[in-house]
Amino acid sequence: MATLGDIGVSAFINIVGAITFLLAFAFLRIQPVNDRVYFPKWYLSGQRTSPRRGSGNFVGKFVNLNCWTYFTFLNWMPQALRMTEAEIINHAGLDSAAFLRIYILGLKIFIPMTILALLILIPVNVSSGTLFFLKKELVLSDIDRLSISNVRPKSIRFFYHIGLEYLFTFWVCYILYKEYNYVASMRLKFLASQRRHAEQFTVVVRNIPIVSGRSISDTVDQYFKRNHPNEYLFHQAVYNANKFARLVRQRDRVQNWLDYYQLKYERHPNKKPTTKPGCLGLCGKRVDAIEYYKRQIKAVDKRMTLEQEKILTDSKSLLPVAFVSFSSRWGAAVCAQTTQSKNPTLWLTNWAPEPRDIYWRNLAIPFVSLSIRKLVISLSVFALVFFYMIPIAFVQSLANLEGLERVAPFLRPVIELKFIKSFLQGFLPGLALKIFLYILPAVLMIMSKIEGHIALSTLERRTAAKYYYFMLVNVFLGSIVTGTAFQQLHAFLHQSPTQIPRNIGETIPSKATFFITYIMVDGWAAIAGEILRFKPLVIFHLKNMFLVKTERDREKATHPGSVDFPETLPSLQLYFLLGIVYAVVTPILLPFILVFFAFAYLVYRHQIINVYDQQYESAAAFWPHVHSRIIASLLISQLLLMGLLSTKKAANSTPFLVALPILTLSFHKYCKYRFEPAFRKYPLEEAMEKDELDKTTEPDINLKSYLADAYLHPIFRSFEEQHESVKVRVDKQETHTAAAPSASEISSPSPPHDISSSSPPHNVHHVPSQYAYYQSSPPQYSYSSNSPPNYVYQSTSPPHYSYHNEEPQPHYMYHNEDPPPHYGSHYGYHNQEL
Amino acid sequence: MATLGDIGVSAFINIVGAITFLLAFAFLRIQPVNDRVYFPKWYLSGQRTSPRRGSGNFVGKFVNLNCWTYFTFLNWMPQALRMTEAEIINHAGLDSAAFLRIYILGLKIFIPMTILALLILIPVNVSSGTLFFLKKELVLSDIDRLSISNVRPKSIRFFYHIGLEYLFTFWVCYILYKEYNYVASMRLKFLASQRRHAEQFTVVVRNIPIVSGRSISDTVDQYFKRNHPNEYLFHQAVYNANKFARLVRQRDRVQNWLDYYQLKYERHPNKKPTTKPGCLGLCGKRVDAIEYYKRQIKAVDKRMTLEQEKILTDSKSLLPVAFVSFSSRWGAAVCAQTTQSKNPTLWLTNWAPEPRDIYWRNLAIPFVSLSIRKLVISLSVFALVFFYMIPIAFVQSLANLEGLERVAPFLRPVIELKFIKSFLQGFLPGLALKIFLYILPAVLMIMSKIEGHIALSTLERRTAAKYYYFMLVNVFLGSIVTGTAFQQLHAFLHQSPTQIPRNIGETIPSKATFFITYIMVDGWAAIAGEILRFKPLVIFHLKNMFLVKTERDREKATHPGSVDFPETLPSLQLYFLLGIVYAVVTPILLPFILVFFAFAYLVYRHQIINVYDQQYESAAAFWPHVHSRIIASLLISQLLLMGLLSTKKAANSTPFLVALPILTLSFHKYCKYRFEPAFRKYPLEEAMEKDELDKTTEPDINLKSYLADAYLHPIFRSFEEQHESVKVRVDKQETHTAAAPSASEISSPSPPHDISSSSPPHNVHHVPSQYAYYQSSPPQYSYSSNSPPNYVYQSTSPPHYSYHNEEPQPHYMYHNEDPPPHYGSHYGYHNQEL
Repeated sequence: MATLGDIGVSAFINIVGAITFLLAFAFLRIQPVNDRVYFPKWYLSGQRTSPRRGSGNFVGKFVNLNCWTYFTFLNWMPQALRMTEAEIINHAGLDSAAFLRIYILGLKIFIPMTILALLILIPVNVSSGTLFFLKKELVLSDIDRLSISNVRPKSIRFFYHIGLEYLFTFWVCYILYKEYNYVASMRLKFLASQRRHAEQFTVVVRNIPIVSGRSISDTVDQYFKRNHPNEYLFHQAVYNANKFARLVRQRDRVQNWLDYYQLKYERHPNKKPTTKPGCLGLCGKRVDAIEYYKRQIKAVDKRMTLEQEKILTDSKSLLPVAFVSFSSRWGAAVCAQTTQSKNPTLWLTNWAPEPRDIYWRNLAIPFVSLSIRKLVISLSVFALVFFYMIPIAFVQSLANLEGLERVAPFLRPVIELKFIKSFLQGFLPGLALKIFLYILPAVLMIMSKIEGHIALSTLERRTAAKYYYFMLVNVFLGSIVTGTAFQQLHAFLHQSPTQIPRNIGETIPSKATFFITYIMVDGWAAIAGEILRFKPLVIFHLKNMFLVKTERDREKATHPGSVDFPETLPSLQLYFLLGIVYAVVTPILLPFILVFFAFAYLVYRHQIINVYDQQYESAAAFWPHVHSRIIASLLISQLLLMGLLSTKKAANSTPFLVALPILTLSFHKYCKYRFEPAFRKYPLEEAMEKDELDKTTEPDINLKSYLADAYLHPIFRSFEEQHESVKVRVDKQETHTAAAPSASEISSPSPPHDISSSSPPHNVHHVPSQYAYYQSSPPQYSYSSNSPPNYVYQSTSPPHYSYHNEEPQPHYMYHNEDPPPHYGSHYGYHNQEL
Repeated sequence: MATLGDIGVSAFINIVGAITFLLAFAFLRIQPVNDRVYFPKWYLSGQRTSPRRGSGNFVGKFVNLNCWTYFTFLNWMPQALRMTEAEIINHAGLDSAAFLRIYILGLKIFIPMTILALLILIPVNVSSGTLFFLKKELVLSDIDRLSISNVRPKSIRFFYHIGLEYLFTFWVCYILYKEYNYVASMRLKFLASQRRHAEQFTVVVRNIPIVSGRSISDTVDQYFKRNHPNEYLFHQAVYNANKFARLVRQRDRVQNWLDYYQLKYERHPNKKPTTKPGCLGLCGKRVDAIEYYKRQIKAVDKRMTLEQEKILTDSKSLLPVAFVSFSSRWGAAVCAQTTQSKNPTLWLTNWAPEPRDIYWRNLAIPFVSLSIRKLVISLSVFALVFFYMIPIAFVQSLANLEGLERVAPFLRPVIELKFIKSFLQGFLPGLALKIFLYILPAVLMIMSKIEGHIALSTLERRTAAKYYYFMLVNVFLGSIVTGTAFQQLHAFLHQSPTQIPRNIGETIPSKATFFITYIMVDGWAAIAGEILRFKPLVIFHLKNMFLVKTERDREKATHPGSVDFPETLPSLQLYFLLGIVYAVVTPILLPFILVFFAFAYLVYRHQIINVYDQQYESAAAFWPHVHSRIIASLLISQLLLMGLLSTKKAANSTPFLVALPILTLSFHKYCKYRFEPAFRKYPLEEAMEKDELDKTTEPDINLKSYLADAYLHPIFRSFEEQHESVKVRVDKQETHTAAAPSASEISSPSPPHDISSSSPPHNVHHVPSQYAYYQSSPPQYSYSSNSPPNYVYQSTSPPHYSYHNEEPQPHYMYHNEDPPPHYGSHYGYHNQEL
């Protein structure tokens, strides 16, 4: 066990490490060459298209030569704090704003708790001094003198701890209630202020019964016309386009090569580029590259046409799923919340996730298998949490040097080399575990996908839940109780329910130093690493050097990513757990948690403003989970304190704690019932209000054309868009003049200008401005809603896309000024038979 | 422990007892004087109004003189079986029919299980014979030789038991699935075939926000006009009429005395009846009874008028609850299933229970207190289940003779008398427990009422659930594990989770004899007692002798009651549990359960046809509970078998059982998701279908007048009805000629005629025929739906009842032929300001 001095040393090292990271960040972020790594959000929003330059010369393009900026290396912090919450919601969406509120919640909870606990409990614990007198016999750390371990058994002083546990519980519940209330109203306000969105009018219907001799589209049409006669508008069928998606990816690849060679040819017109068509471009006869790839594209296009024909004509590729749109939000809300069919397994309706949020692949899962999948996955998660050490131990035993020599005796001469031997011995056993922990989130995500959720947001929430269970068992309990999770499980099954909190509670104070170190290493360092973005930085420069062939590739290489909810939320929740559990046991741990929350808040605020671009908007749908996990932490802390006190023979004080879990649970139930519907359901009152507002402001909107292909599989979309790039470009010009300037002037905050604050705003290019419009106002999905609808979509006949694949578009060539349009442009296909 | 012989003797005694009961029943039921006790249903349905007479003389009026009928004393059995299920549904409602299906379910489950278990397991157990050889050392019962205890530890034969457990689980699940499916479709068919009912169009709205300066009625009207503009019809406010109800009861009492004296005066016109107005009619000056009670009625009427005025004018008596009616079933289904308000604690909508089913008193409970009430009650139920022995033991210790003498030394001379002493010693200690068990269902019902459910059906289901927990812990576990429930709880908390099933499983085989006796005493005897209806019989005759003053009193005295779900369902579920647990452990127990199910099926069929009159119709809403409790029984049996086998050191076979609970739970989840919505929600498809049917068959129905006062507090109703008896009578004449004959001719089955089968049907009286109409067709609640609506109810102004209390109605005098109208007559009040 560490003394206070040890902790101090450790803290010092970690603080120095963090400051080094911050310095590195401060240095790297002002280099123009890294601009795309540290400010990608501004590129996406179109307010920057090229790195800001300190001076105009060539070196200045890569290295920042303005000395002054090196001295203000911490000025990202006030910049990060400058934006108001409303601006953040505008700039990055409600999910990000709500995510930041978790840190605020942590600060609100732990600042008063820290002050109170330090002021009251430290004197109580120190002066009580059993350990103080026992010092000679037992080797005990100084930390323990500050903890509850220092209080004599049967002491009356335990009432201080019990009283504080009550106080803390009430405080946490009070703050939780206030925050839940705040976030719920934020969500409602956000939803109310949203402009017209496809998902407000749309319901996803699963398990459509297949009537023989009639197409699914007909069945859906007839059913909803009959049961929702006033509100039903039309529906969009869902195709199983997984094979088509593969072809689209292949075409993308080929197209990219074509672009690359065309660019090369343009720069050096005297040298015709060639390539080898064999495997990986290494073997085969050398041919003209441009010709070759043009032929390739033609071939792929042909296959795509065939595949598309097949999808549209073959009834088997039509899934028993449909997106049903209604003429009013009220109608959609009614349909989403009610039972449709007499057979409760058919015609299952639910809110449609927003189009960006849909995980298309899972729509193809037949509904019957979902319950089996859920069962299998829950069993696997249980096994993973408790038995993951078994395969790892097996691999580790194989990776022993002796084992290795036995398996492969011919390796012995190599292994016996001293250098290699020591390296292997130090490295091999940990390697399997490291690899496992590294890929764990990905594994959990795959498990969630197998479960069959159809929205990315749900997938991430489910993954976060699984990761939390893993951390709870293997980090929290695993650090307290010795032995693997499997051994713990075995012990739990063979102990009485009252013995378990006692055993755990007893060891808890002695593990405080470990967790303090954990908070510093895992928390502080990780946050400092987060802001440095070391991995994306390295990858960006590597890609830039080797892989980037076209400007489109550079766009791809600087993909900003989004806040990694599946990993971040569980670790946050673990810190809440640690703070709440140790608040009365070893209050000296609390300041470390406080530092983490404050630091992380700053860093994530900066990242959300400058870096991350959320993939979807779930309007803070994760908040109920955050809330209930903190409640769970409270319960765990109460149980463990009861166990701890019962080992302290404080029999006269322990019963006073029994009421706490009951009160906490009641509070949880109340909150669940009070706030959760706001996160799960769409009240009719709200729907009606917005419908009426629409009626008065835009009485003549053609909703059918607006919704027409909102829920088209993105695969069809990206394909169309490339073939219609000319048309798209024209449309964009129009849209831009109408919408973009006003949007960027009014609602989008300006990026931090710390290199040359006099530099003019860069939004001179059309497409990125449109992006700005898209980002700074609620998302739209269909760009040309202001332009007259030039196509009508009819639900009963599947859409038929006629596209021109006779010759690749010569206009399709990217310049630095003009990144390719992507996500949601104007498709301009011509519907036949309307 | 009992040997096979002991069991045989016990069985013989119980069978003789049961046969005695049956003989008594056979004798008593054919006495005309008991006719109202054994066939009250036929009186209610109007097919009998006076006892059937064997011969016309005076004695024959009371005693059956037809000798032949004494020899056919068991012919109620074939008669009970004669009615088809469809007829039972028509005759007694779906609840009763579904209740009978529980017994059929029991037979279907246990007949094959009994045959298989006896054929396979008995030989396996007997031939395995460890106990056989140990006979000299251990005193073991013969029953044990037939049970699993007889198999040697580590024997390979345990695979028979495991295999059969698998087989039985699959069989039970298969039958459960089929029955759930059947009952669900029965329910849907029943709901679909129902005629127009008020509750199909009505939603109960709770937690209406109180807007200052506006009445609740206005708020409701405005809110629903806004959010359900196309479907909203009107609403009915709910008044807090609990005080008014007291006055109504008082008036009833006085009215009854008046009737009594008027009848007396009619019979002996020369003797003017007198009474003493003092306490209990014993003291005070003797006055003219008729005059006195007329004055009394006047006084009560005045107070009622005042109270009614107060209710209707005082805004405080208006509760924040309303019954909101819609113009279509679709509209009501939508409103009941959706969230209305942005604040999820306001405007809570739910299906309105049918008017008969409403527990009016709980509508006055403010919604905020409901969650607290639920918490308090769940804690109390937990305490009741586990600690009920503490107060009883305390009372018992007081009731000790020594304790009694110490508390009250002056009683010593009395207590020391030998006769009294022995009586007290034998009687006192058990008395407290007996009283407790007798009042337990009532206590649980009160608890459920405190929980605040607004429907009688929900109250009964909740009471049944509580009673089941009590039986599970105190009868099942309490018999297996020694000690009180409190000691068990203590032991459970201090044992490991794996140790508990082991401990219980180990003792299970030895308790088989106890449970066999329990089945015979509690099951067989109780069923025989059920058909004898000893208590109602005695009470009826006692009342007839002493209390019955008027014909109305006789009507009241013969109230048939209804199937006592809160007590019957839990004991049934206990028998399922016993059968499933012992099926592989001690299969000899199964035949006893089979006999119980078969016998109980016959008896309840008879009772439902001839006796019981259900108070409400929930359309088999209790079935999901029945289903899930049987699933719970399966799980318990699997866990206990695992525990039992692990004590038998069958380590190589026990793991095979682990998959069973998981499979069973998945099956349960599947069923829940597959069938439960049919019991909880009303699908829109169904609603739309019925709406359209209505539109075509009755296009010009005035729904508003039909629904006008369906949800009027019954107190107002019964009061009005007495004051408008003339009008009611006229209306009834009309209604009768229109509806009653056809209804009784077509759908109501004829009563068993075993005394004189040539006796003509007795439905010549108007009001009972109307009752017949009410019973044999789906209930109507509003009699004069065919007569032109002569009043219009407007929801925004509270109804104002003008009634004539200037002089008591001289017509109000009952003859034998004409029982008073009750429940749902025509109110005929005049609304002012429409």
